[in-house]
Amino acid sequence: MTISFTVTERDAGSHARTGTITTEHGEFQTPAFMPVGTSASVKGIWPDQLREMGYRCILSNTYHLYLRPGHERIRSLGGLHRFMGWSGTILTDSGGFQVFSLSALRKVSEDGVSFRSHIDGSPHFLSPELAVEVQEALGSDIRMALDECVALPSDRRETEEAVRRTTAWARRCLAASRREEGGQFGIVQGGLFPDLRRRSVEEICALPFAGYAIGGVSVGEGKEHQRDTVAETAPLLPEKRPRYLMGVGSPEDILLAISCGVDLFDCVIPTRNARNGTLYTSAGPLSVKQARYAADPAPPHESCSCLTCRSFSRAYLRHLYLQREILAPMALTIHNLHFYASLMKRIRKAISVGNFPETVKESLVLKAR
Amino acid sequence: MTISFTVTERDAGSHARTGTITTEHGEFQTPAFMPVGTSASVKGIWPDQLREMGYRCILSNTYHLYLRPGHERIRSLGGLHRFMGWSGTILTDSGGFQVFSLSALRKVSEDGVSFRSHIDGSPHFLSPELAVEVQEALGSDIRMALDECVALPSDRRETEEAVRRTTAWARRCLAASRREEGGQFGIVQGGLFPDLRRRSVEEICALPFAGYAIGGVSVGEGKEHQRDTVAETAPLLPEKRPRYLMGVGSPEDILLAISCGVDLFDCVIPTRNARNGTLYTSAGPLSVKQARYAADPAPPHESCSCLTCRSFSRAYLRHLYLQREILAPMALTIHNLHFYASLMKRIRKAISVGNFPETVKESLVLKAR
Repeated sequence: MTISFTVTERDAGSHARTGTITTEHGEFQTPAFMPVGTSASVKGIWPDQLREMGYRCILSNTYHLYLRPGHERIRSLGGLHRFMGWSGTILTDSGGFQVFSLSALRKVSEDGVSFRSHIDGSPHFLSPELAVEVQEALGSDIRMALDECVALPSDRRETEEAVRRTTAWARRCLAASRREEGGQFGIVQGGLFPDLRRRSVEEICALPFAGYAIGGVSVGEGKEHQRDTVAETAPLLPEKRPRYLMGVGSPEDILLAISCGVDLFDCVIPTRNARNGTLYTSAGPLSVKQARYAADPAPPHESCSCLTCRSFSRAYLRHLYLQREILAPMALTIHNLHFYASLMKRIRKAISVGNFPETVKESLVLKAR
Repeated sequence: MTISFTVTERDAGSHARTGTITTEHGEFQTPAFMPVGTSASVKGIWPDQLREMGYRCILSNTYHLYLRPGHERIRSLGGLHRFMGWSGTILTDSGGFQVFSLSALRKVSEDGVSFRSHIDGSPHFLSPELAVEVQEALGSDIRMALDECVALPSDRRETEEAVRRTTAWARRCLAASRREEGGQFGIVQGGLFPDLRRRSVEEICALPFAGYAIGGVSVGEGKEHQRDTVAETAPLLPEKRPRYLMGVGSPEDILLAISCGVDLFDCVIPTRNARNGTLYTSAGPLSVKQARYAADPAPPHESCSCLTCRSFSRAYLRHLYLQREILAPMALTIHNLHFYASLMKRIRKAISVGNFPETVKESLVLKAR
């Protein structure tokens, strides 16, 4: 198996751990946050800038690439890495989550999901086999099995059915893979029902995936219940494989999940919030739109060393945002992704030097201010 | 006078020359092209990237900055250089051109121009004195005198009146300046009437400006006549001062104007065309929108060394453009500004090694392909 994972350090007081994931496209340290490059681009940033910030693994969305420009097109152009100019590791989702959340007229059967494109209404059918085929055409290093994702809160019968189908599809995904080196991750479902989560863990983790993900947690309502679910589920996943919490999340959610033993995260919020004018700082969010920053010569955050904070004032960022200058999303994205990269670096260091609990406490206290 | 200009080399067969302009914010070589940063940002590019490409002087628009965020605001934030994070030279126009082309309900009198903002309809009055005051508040290194710009083709009576008024306003601009080091440029008008151009040259060049510009050439129709006007006017401007052709232009127009002795250029076309999906190459323009590039693995231009050509294929750029990814204008802007920077570098070298005529010929032949 080309994908390898080694746990390097463990926190004494929690499930938190550091590790190294190695793929054909290099190695990176965990816990890691993966910026989201939905349509083969992390919006507003150059691949080189991601690398300079320390990112070595990004996520891209199979659903979007399957529709535009098409996986065969990307295969013929040498694969996704070459297509988007990214030499690091790429994880792709299965497309299932977007089919369930974005597409129209979807209909789930045992075979797969039929749906209509959110772009042009064209009819499509996503099966476990197609999810594998598309991701293998893209050439992603880490590929997700197709799961059935139910929105929260969900009823028990529906959730139970999704768990059963997710396991059946997981088997088909493994059987469909033509890549010898592995690199597929399985996904655990089960909604907010502890026993269904446990059942899904048992079934999925019995299959020889390279890593295991917790799915269906970032969808819908009930943050507290979602946190409980992560806390209960993550420690049940195999120790020796990377654990991935899909679509999460805020710095606080990430910290809590790391303490439960999660290694990988992806989320659109640092990049999407940047485009909406909101910056992350260790003193809380800062909305550059606000009139109070119109004459403020300070950088977004005094102690931040990102290109944006070294170059620009709050007043200038507000001006760029109000003028809809392209530099506004560019500058705000750099800051937010730098914030996330620094957070993950700080957490990895804290785990390895043994002061992870203090880091969690500090961060949560800062948040509560 | 802080602004200094030295002619370093002359072409034997034309009026072309190389030179060095020195301002408080460094020196740069001429002939030079200035990227346009309308609202205190060259759209889609980081200041550092401009510098890396070799740009040392950019243009910003007084009209836009006067309306948003306001010159007093920028002054209180330490001036335009600090505001936009640009440590090189900045040239600002007088605001006159935009008042004549963008604003509504404008009315010219001997005192100045009353107009309504194109943003919110608010009433304003731009006088020569205000044009100076705004630019001095911005702290620009090179500041343009307020002129009256008539759209081409214009009638003789109107043009004659504009020439007279432009001279009167030029005197008032010099009188209004509070900056001891100079740094103001005068602007020659006169439409397409050779005798009025000569009259304007005589009147404006009799005044102690740090440089002289040809105005009113990029507006309206009649490209051939405009080229004739530049060819007749540029050599009449003082040898020892920089000559600036405002709002020009295409690579061909720039080449021809350099052969007439022009040193400075600004134009939105490399950046605006980039945002519209058109790339400059030495083999002619390339529109990334075209279906023929959908599966094209080649970079925009094989022999180009810009970040975009080193990183991305035509197929990827087309994908980014069609998906409206922010990276599309970013990548296309980098390429086009790199193309302009390389063109100017090549021209400066050709002049200094004595093969400028061959360079002009080659470029025009390439264009005609």
